[in-house]
Formats: sequence, C-alpha cells, structure tokens
Amino acid sequence: MKDGKKADSKEVAQLLKGFGKDIARDIHAQKSPKFKTMSRTKSNIIFNKKEGYLTLGKATEERSFLNVAQTKRFMQTVAIASKCNKFLSENLHTSIRGLFYQLKYSLGEDIDENIFSEQAESNPLIEDLEASLGVKRESLNLTANRKGVLAGNMKVLDRYGGEETETNTAKLGRSGWTIPSDVDNEIEFVDVKAKYVLVVEKDALWQRLNEDGFWKKENCILISPQGQAARGARRLIRKLADNDLPVYVFNDGDAWGWYIYWTIKTGSINLAYVGSEIATPEARFLGVTMSDLEQYDFLKKMTLKASEVDLKRAQEMLGYPWINQHKEWEEELKLVLKLKVKLEQDTLQGPRLTFVDEYIKDKIKNKEWLP
Amino acid sequence: MKDGKKADSKEVAQLLKGFGKDIARDIHAQKSPKFKTMSRTKSNIIFNKKEGYLTLGKATEERSFLNVAQTKRFMQTVAIASKCNKFLSENLHTSIRGLFYQLKYSLGEDIDENIFSEQAESNPLIEDLEASLGVKRESLNLTANRKGVLAGNMKVLDRYGGEETETNTAKLGRSGWTIPSDVDNEIEFVDVKAKYVLVVEKDALWQRLNEDGFWKKENCILISPQGQAARGARRLIRKLADNDLPVYVFNDGDAWGWYIYWTIKTGSINLAYVGSEIATPEARFLGVTMSDLEQYDFLKKMTLKASEVDLKRAQEMLGYPWINQHKEWEEELKLVLKLKVKLEQDTLQGPRLTFVDEYIKDKIKNKEWLP
Repeated sequence: MKDGKKADSKEVAQLLKGFGKDIARDIHAQKSPKFKTMSRTKSNIIFNKKEGYLTLGKATEERSFLNVAQTKRFMQTVAIASKCNKFLSENLHTSIRGLFYQLKYSLGEDIDENIFSEQAESNPLIEDLEASLGVKRESLNLTANRKGVLAGNMKVLDRYGGEETETNTAKLGRSGWTIPSDVDNEIEFVDVKAKYVLVVEKDALWQRLNEDGFWKKENCILISPQGQAARGARRLIRKLADNDLPVYVFNDGDAWGWYIYWTIKTGSINLAYVGSEIATPEARFLGVTMSDLEQYDFLKKMTLKASEVDLKRAQEMLGYPWINQHKEWEEELKLVLKLKVKLEQDTLQGPRLTFVDEYIKDKIKNKEWLP
Repeated sequence: MKDGKKADSKEVAQLLKGFGKDIARDIHAQKSPKFKTMSRTKSNIIFNKKEGYLTLGKATEERSFLNVAQTKRFMQTVAIASKCNKFLSENLHTSIRGLFYQLKYSLGEDIDENIFSEQAESNPLIEDLEASLGVKRESLNLTANRKGVLAGNMKVLDRYGGEETETNTAKLGRSGWTIPSDVDNEIEFVDVKAKYVLVVEKDALWQRLNEDGFWKKENCILISPQGQAARGARRLIRKLADNDLPVYVFNDGDAWGWYIYWTIKTGSINLAYVGSEIATPEARFLGVTMSDLEQYDFLKKMTLKASEVDLKRAQEMLGYPWINQHKEWEEELKLVLKLKVKLEQDTLQGPRLTFVDEYIKDKIKNKEWLP
C-alpha cells in the first residue's frame, strides 16, 4: 500500500537531536536558547483551497528561554522533547497521560524540580513540539486515543512490541479490526483488495453491514470511526484514499453527522497543524440527506425534530467557505433550516434490517452523494 | 471453554413462541391478555450474599392489556417480542435503536399504528421482556453497545453472518481483539491457555502492557473494558472465571475506578436482572490503593486532589453492605476520606514506562489485593 507521508523513526530521532543541538549551541554561544514553531492561533489557520483541507499558514512563533513569559513553557517543552527522545531510544510508547506522569516523576537524571502540575499544561506543548519538528505525536512514540473498526480484504503487518503479526482483516468475524492510534510506524497494510472505502458513523450500523457481509459482496473496506473519527482512523482513511480508493461516508443527517464528515474531509481547526496527513478531501457524503425524504417515502414518518444544536450548526456551516463553496451543501443545510428535522442512519433499517445495504448500493450506483 | 449459563437460539425462539401463545390463549378464552415479569424496582433488588452479586428478589409484576394504565405498554412489549421473533427467524441482529425504527416503521403486516415516539419508551420494555423470558437481549438478537479489548493465548470461533472465522487473540499486534456485545451465541472460546485474567481500566495502560508483551511473559489474558465495562466485557470476564481463571482488576484509585471494579465484581443495580450472568464475585482489586503510598515512596508526589465526586462516592460505598462487609475496603475508603487524594494507574509509568509491569507482578505474587 502506498504510504503518503510517513515518518521514519530514525529521521524523527535525528529531528529531536537537532532540536536539542540547536538549544545547546545557543547556550554555548551565551545566547538565549530558543526554538521556532508554527503559530496555531486562529489567524494562522487557513483553508487550502487547492488541496481542500484546513492547514496552518506561514506564521511562526519563537519560544525563548530568556523571556519571562515563556521561560517555564520553554523548559517544559524541552523536557517533553527529552522524554520523547528517551521513548524513541527505548522503542517504547506511552499515552500523553503517561508522559505527564513521567515528567511529574522527574525531568531528567538530576532534576527533581516538579514543573508540571496539570496535564492541561503539557498538551499544548506537545503540539508546539509536533508543529516545530513537523511530525505527528505518534512518531514521537506518543499514543493518542484510538477508536474505530474495520473489515475488508486487506492484511495488516504489525511489528509492534518486537514481534511481527499478520492480521487478515477479512477474518475477524463480528469483532472487526481495531484501528490503532498509529497507522504509520512499524505497521504496513498490504494486499488491499477493494473497490472503495465505506465509512459509517455508528458502530451499530457497521455491525449491521458486517453481519450482512456487505463488504464481501461489494468488495469494499468497511470502517466505522465509532462516532467522531480519532486521529488514527482519519489517517488510515487518508492512506486508503492514497491508494486510489474512493471514500464514501454514511452518517446521520444531523449536526454531529455533518461534523464527523467534514472532519474526515477537510480536517479540523484543532488538528490543522497535521492537516495534510489526516484530511481526505476526496470523501463524499452518501447520506442521510434531506432529499432522501423525497426519494424514500417511508422516511417522512421517521424524522426527528432537529435540536437547537442541529439548527445552530447548520447555520454556522453555511458560513464556512469550505462548505458553502458547494451549492449542494448550501441547499442541504437550507433545507434543514426550513424543515427543522433530522434523520438518523438507523432509520434505514425500518422497512427491513437489510434495507440499509440497498440504500448504500443505490446511492453509490446512482452517484447520489454530496461533495 | 466452559460456557456457564448459555442461551440457545432455538430455546429462545421457543420461549418467545410460548410468550405469544399464552397471550393468544387468553384472548381466545376472552380474558384480558397478560404476562408476568420480574419486578425491577429498587425494593426487589437484593444482594445475594451467598453468591456475591446483585440480583432480583422474588417479586413479580403483571402487565395486563385491559388495564388502562398498562394497555399501551402491553401492546408495545408484544410488538417488541414480535420483532425479536422475526429477527431470530431471519437470523439477523440489530441495535435497540434499529429495533425502535422498525417499530416506528410498522408494528406488523397490517398495523400502521405509530405507538412509539421515543426510544426511551422502548428501552424499559426490552428489559421487561428479558426479565419475563429470563434471557438476555443478546439472545433476542439485539446488540448492545460493545467496548473492550483483549489479548492472550486463546482462540475465538465466530459463526457470525454465516461464515466461521477463527481468530487467534495472541496474533493481533497493537490492535487486540474487540470484545463483542454477544459472547454467547454462535461464538466459542477455545484453547484458553492462561494462568489468570488481568483487567486494566484504561485502554492506554492496556496498550502499554501489550507492547511489553506482558500477557505473553505472564501467560495471562489481558483485557481492558476501556472504562466502564459493557455487557459483553462483563459477560466474557464471567465466562473466563468459569474456566477457573483468577480475575485481577487494575484500576484508578478513585470513584470511577472503584465503580468499574464493583460493577465487574457484583454487577450493577441496572443490570441486576441478569446479575448471575455478568457478575464475577471472585474478582480481586490489585490497585491503585492508598496503601501503595506507603509501599512505593515516589507515589507520594504523584497524588491528585480527590474531587467532590470521589469523596462522596467513597462515603456512599461505605454504606453498601456488599462493600462494607470487607474490612479491607472499609479501611481503604476511610483512608481516602482522610487523605483526600486519588491515584491514577498511569502514575505507575512514572519511574520508567515498564514499571507498571513490575507493580502488577509484585501485587499478584505477594497477594496484595483488596477482595
């Protein structure tokens, strides 16, 4: 499988060493040690229209030791870099909570200073470091929360923990394959034999489709992010799209369902600093849409009242240039505001449990999707 | 693997048919159709001291059609039973949300009445039906939310969706095996080669231990419920305990960690009606405990301030007979109230990432657990 951008752990170790060397050089030159990172403030988050995702602009920020407002954060970031360097050399991973407690335990061999009292302090500094080095935290051996499940004709070669395992994701029964937080390092996806990727918001719908053998009959890769897509799931969808597989998303027709779709498609403001690696601008929204109400008569009695949040979100989305550039989405959202209803993907099980299979197949066949 | 109590789908279909026949007989005899279920009110939830779990007492309740206060609920429950009967005959599963939309779509062949407007209405009726028939919803082909991950020397034979798959849970790399909602029907666990079961609250710690190959070195089954244990995870822990494997639980030392432990051990008030199938009274609590503060000096600087919720919960737990019967727990909770601190399991990564492995091994070796 093509790998898109991929971190290499030796390269990352070099980057971290370079980070440290620059600081040491400043110290030896009797200058204030400093490092540059990308600005992640709102004004530097831009929508890259050509590529189709949220990313950072060119603005950088300097973190300097001899700046009273920055001294503590500077020290903390260096401490984080030092810990990550250790994790890389040990070839061991931990969560950002584990990192926090390592920092709380000791900053280094002889430093017993406790400069971290809350994890909220260390989180933005990890992002500073990621943006400064231009690598994702997963490549610094920090695991993020994982969520998401997959089934399909594909194999996973995983060299985690020193032993290689080969998993055939077509042979995992009701369980499916859990999408890990890191899908780049010491892991490979081979023999991807599928025509497209289908992403379904809810695990319950994934289970429904999995039971029907939908992915076998259709020869697709069936993914559920199990709600909002975690970093690992987004990255994997991007990697599958890099293999020229079309990506279709089937979500609820409500605020949350749209949000999950747009996060997969264009990335998110919070993760704009890794936008190119996790966004899949090629993704298409199969439904549930308001125009389904015309096409599938029974849906009229299955609508739920849109909540305040749904309506507020629809209004907001109409203001986002990356959404309102698509007239189809403008129409969809205006229809929501007019009808004041929402539709859940579960409704497609109404007439019979397997109706959802037909709905998805028809949508793809007739190219009835929103961009 | 021994199967404990196990539902058989033919048996369940017979139970559902019996349920329907009794109602039909009442109608033909011109009596008000009715059925009996177990009372699930607080007064009928008892702690079975001999067995060690929360269960229902002997009180029953009657649901009758010709009782104005019950007519609608009676009809709804019969409609649910009819849908489940259909799912069983189709050999297809759905979530309770899918069931809700099937009911909203149509109650049956000729009945277009919409007697369900919200899912909140159908949920207690599913429980009525489960308690009336004495089977879990999973055996009525209703899938509950699934959560939880497992690694260890064990094989899963899964005949879900008509194709048998065999999964070796020792060969799933960083992902592990996702614990499904139903671990009883058309699924078998074979070749369980382990000395004990280790349950760790947080997925991040599971990943840490999995990376170290803890379950390989120790020959244990490593499970994380990923927070509060779902029905499937609880049921699987029960089934593993039925195979004479000791069950150790390693959680945070706070309100949530204790709650997760006691839910695994004694079951919960909400699920008292299936108590015997999901509770594991043999479970032991390895930590994190307040007495660890004495044993592991570095933990003193790793404590967090206990929240109001932690302290309130500790106080409440001291009042539960199934907890305060253990003097070790009484001491632990009193210590919490005195010290007003909490300890997270992540702290055990402080000195070095692999320290958590040693902590767990020492605890088990020295039999340092709470009952």
